[in-house]
Parts: sequence; C-alpha cells; structure tokens
Amino acid sequence: MQLAIIGSTGHINYVMDGLRELPEVRLVGVSPGSEGEPIGKLTERAAREGHEPTVYADYRELLDKARPDVVAVACFFHDHAKIAAEALRRGIHVFVEKPVATSLDDLAMLREAYRNAGGAQLAAMFGIRYNPAFYTAWHAVRDGAVGGIRLMHAQKSYRLGSRGEHFKRRETYGGTIPWVGSHAIDWVHWFSGARFETVYASHSAMHNQGNGELEMSAACQFTMSGQIAATVSIDYLRPAAAPTHGDDRIRIAGTEGVLEVRGGQVLLINGEQEGERELPLLPKADIFADFVRQIAGTGTCLVSAEQSFYVTEACLKAVISADENRVVTF
Amino acid sequence: MQLAIIGSTGHINYVMDGLRELPEVRLVGVSPGSEGEPIGKLTERAAREGHEPTVYADYRELLDKARPDVVAVACFFHDHAKIAAEALRRGIHVFVEKPVATSLDDLAMLREAYRNAGGAQLAAMFGIRYNPAFYTAWHAVRDGAVGGIRLMHAQKSYRLGSRGEHFKRRETYGGTIPWVGSHAIDWVHWFSGARFETVYASHSAMHNQGNGELEMSAACQFTMSGQIAATVSIDYLRPAAAPTHGDDRIRIAGTEGVLEVRGGQVLLINGEQEGERELPLLPKADIFADFVRQIAGTGTCLVSAEQSFYVTEACLKAVISADENRVVTF
Repeated sequence: MQLAIIGSTGHINYVMDGLRELPEVRLVGVSPGSEGEPIGKLTERAAREGHEPTVYADYRELLDKARPDVVAVACFFHDHAKIAAEALRRGIHVFVEKPVATSLDDLAMLREAYRNAGGAQLAAMFGIRYNPAFYTAWHAVRDGAVGGIRLMHAQKSYRLGSRGEHFKRRETYGGTIPWVGSHAIDWVHWFSGARFETVYASHSAMHNQGNGELEMSAACQFTMSGQIAATVSIDYLRPAAAPTHGDDRIRIAGTEGVLEVRGGQVLLINGEQEGERELPLLPKADIFADFVRQIAGTGTCLVSAEQSFYVTEACLKAVISADENRVVTF
Repeated sequence: MQLAIIGSTGHINYVMDGLRELPEVRLVGVSPGSEGEPIGKLTERAAREGHEPTVYADYRELLDKARPDVVAVACFFHDHAKIAAEALRRGIHVFVEKPVATSLDDLAMLREAYRNAGGAQLAAMFGIRYNPAFYTAWHAVRDGAVGGIRLMHAQKSYRLGSRGEHFKRRETYGGTIPWVGSHAIDWVHWFSGARFETVYASHSAMHNQGNGELEMSAACQFTMSGQIAATVSIDYLRPAAAPTHGDDRIRIAGTEGVLEVRGGQVLLINGEQEGERELPLLPKADIFADFVRQIAGTGTCLVSAEQSFYVTEACLKAVISADENRVVTF
C-alpha cells in the first residue's frame, strides 16, 4: 500500500507511529498542504525512521505523480477540506486532521466528494478515542456500566504555549471550538450514540496574550436525542506549571452508574460494587493502523467517515452559536 | 433575640446547628409552613436539645403571637416566598431555604416585601458557601489564586433516595434546577462576582423511578459579564453505592491558574509552584450564626439578600429556558 502525507502541522505523529506496525505500507511522497507551511519536521522524522519519500512542492502534484492509495492530510486547518476532497476525487483514501472543515460550505463540499468517491474511505484524526483511558471507558459504557446515558460533561484544557501564525486568524484556524473542542464534542456523540438536536455556545478571545483572534476559552451545551444533555468546557488556560500539557476528561452519568475519565484513569461507580473503583486499562491500539486495516478489509477503524463529518458539523454550528449568541438547531 | 422556625422540610439543621453557638438566641415558636407538612422531626430535635418552643398550627398565628425577631423558613418549596414575605412585612428578619421563590412573580413579590421591610434582613440557605472546601476555595480565588476568572464548571450530583410527595409535582417542588442546582448556580455568581447575561438550559424527568414530574438531570450554560462562561451539571444519578450522598464540585479556570473543589479537597495549579497542590482548609464557619451576628451588627453573613434574590432569578430563568428550549436573557 502506498502512502503520502500532505502537511506537517497537525497530528502527523499518529501516522508515523502507526507506520511502525505497518510494514506493508510505503511512504512514497510528502508535500506541504498550505501556502507557506513548513514540513521540515516531517521530512526529518521520515528520514530518521528509514523512509525515502519524494518531496513535492505542491499537493496536487503529489496526488497525481506519487499516486498514493492513502493520504494523510494535516496542514493549516482551513485547507483540510479542500485537500481531502481533491484526494477523494482521485479515489484515494483519506486520513485527515480534525476538524475536517472549518466552514459548513467546505463541509458540504467534502461530504459531496466523499459520496462520489466510489468507495474511497475517510477518517478524521479523533485519536483520543484510542487513548487507553477513553478506549477503556467507551468499552465499559458500551457494555452497560452506567446503564442509559443521561448527562455528560467533557473537558479539554491545554497549555497555551507558543502558537503558530495560523492559529491567530479565524480564517486559517477555524476557532478553538473546532480545534481543541472537537475531541470533547466527538466523545459526547461517540459514547452516547445520540444525535445532536441543539447547541448553545460561547467563546472569548480575551486575555489571549497577543494571539490575535484565538479564543482562550469556550463552553458549549448540546441537547441530544432521548433528552440527553451534554456540556463541554474548552480552554487554553492550563498553567505552564501543570504536570501535563492537557487535562482531558469526561463524566458520564447514566441510569445505573457514573463513569469518569480523569488524569488518565477510568473511575466507575455502579451497583456492582460499593464505592468508586478504577477500571484496568485496555492495551493501547493505533488509530492509523486501524484505518489501514479497514481499507485492507481486515479491521474496522473506530472513527467512521459519517462521524467525522457529523462531529465537524456540530463544532461548526457551535461556532456559529457562539459568534451570533443564539441557539443553533441540527 | 427571639427565633421561630416555620417548616421542617429543608435544611433546618443549619439553624439547629447554629443555635449551639448562639446562647443569646431563644427558640420561642415553631409551626408547619405548608399545608400537610409534618414537623415532628423538628419538635423532637428541639426538645432533645433543650429548647421549649410553643408549637403553632399556623405560621401566621406564630408570627403574630410569638413575635420573633428572626424566623427560619423551610417548608414545601413553593411556600418559601409567601411566608418569607409575611415575616418581612412584620419587620422580622428571615433566614429562608433556597430557592427563595419558585416563580418569577413570587420572587418579585418577595423582593418588594424586602424593599419595604424597613431594614429587616434576609439570607437564603446557601450553606455550601460555608463548607470548608468551598469557603477555602472562595478565599483563595478572592486573593487572586487564578487571576481573572474566565471559565467555570459546577456540578451537583445527588443520590435519588426516597423523595417526599412535594418533590413529585412542579407546583410544589419548583424543579431540580432551583432545588439541587441553585447551589451550583450560586457558586458561579459568588466566585466570579460576574452578572448573568443569558442562560440556556435543559432538563429531563425520564427514568425518575416513579417520582412524577421530578427532573433527574439538568444542564445549564450561562454567559456572564466580561465574556465569562459557566456550565452547570445537575443530577440525581449518583448511585446508591457511591461513598457519599452528594458529589459537589467546581472548576474555575482563570488567567493565572486553575482551581478545583472536588471530593472535599481544594486543588490549585498556578505559577507559584510546580504541579497541582492541595490547599489546607480554613476552619468551618456557621451560616446561621453568621446571619444572627449580622443582625446584631457584629458580623457579616456571606449570603446577602440581593444575592439570594439574584441567584433565585437565575435558577428560575434557567427553568424557563429548559421548559421552552430557548435562550433567556437577564
């Protein structure tokens, strides 16, 4: 199987990590995705790990000349949809950074390209589904650990650190809700399987330490099918002194129990045992390797194309809600 | 100082606990507040602790004959406002269970009675402000531990247990957002000092185990002055197997740090020290004793009348939002 990588901005590490367990996949080409995007980090890592890709200056040239079977796309965020669609139109499978689009128009265009791609597959880089704590929690919830889900709260909190220029303009960045928050919005859909009905959101770029339009904090509330509710808290306010870069959490309250992911642990209270207990973690699985196995027909990726689109839609509707201070319906 | 107690439904324990450190206060009368309200638990505890109150069948008779200086009101929730207003109209100070009203009309009536009460004072039983963890956290935040507050998430989670009949009808209960959630809504106002601007909320009575109209879960999102956002999660989904009745939490993310109250601990990350640290707790103070000292002019209660009204307004607007599935503005 031939792989190409377009861009070096997002979670290309998912791809490079996955390659280690995919001897049948050959990295044949790399290129920038966005204008002015540096890809030195990518070419260096590729060389260090024994790959010999051809470097193209333009992603269209790469698609046409390298003729990959599968392409990973992770450039400046507003270019994800356009490049993913170009690949799909050539029948190439796409593993694309989230959000898969930064506007509803781009999302509609990408969905259309996917529908007409003649079976080419797509998955967004919702890699935290494969984090052992979230992966374990999801299996427990699917196996009935909390009964029927009623209420969820998800949290993404990051250190701000130093951000590239494309983070500082909405046009290239898309917003903190789609970039940071999409994981949390993905979890509330993934765990519950419920449909989004409405969203109300807010965000603020105040105190962003000179990062232009970048929002430092955001909150979203979703009403979902079955009278399920979900709140989502998103911020870049995690202090530099914090023990880790991120503080990812979800709390899921159901008819039979309450489960939490916090600090890399899975904590459960239900009727099976007195008190709160920590669940043993399932072994780590690899998102990109799973996607490649799905393409080969030997496995199933946890992230479907439809979920990739639907969660992006939820993120973009949350941005509209926050920008316009109104409820947006699905 | 003469005290009377009307009702035995809510947190009368705040009053009885406070009396132990108030030898100058004499319990002169007790009565039911609501039709059909049992007060056996109250009269028994009063007798056991050496008080000799006269028992009245009707709260108006109590107000007129026992002539208390201060009255505690904690009956079925829809009667709080009416009885508190009756007391204020007689110039009697009022310590009243939250929510202080279950409709905006009742709240307006109570506010009017307070304005015309000639200096009679009022505080709602937001007793969790006096819980050592919340009390310690509030002092830390006030002293600048997190810098400027940007984002908050508050949680109230209770065991359902067995609920009296007045919980099962909205008319007498007022809703889970005002009853359980009012504490959390109080915290986000109390910690930040910010004004509420909009609220979007949802609640659900599904799976309530035969408890009529009682909502089992609710979620609220508030936008607040200064582009501060707050989400609130409220439920009766805490399993019987849980180690405690309630799971009260708040997370406060600010420009300089993140503070949490969770499991009775106060956890802080900011620039003063590497990593997360637990703050030593301040000694417990007593809400009712503080209110009596405020009346006597020797202290200040943490809960003001204006805050009692304002937080109740926020709760009731959240109920309207949830009932009508729309944003409600302040």
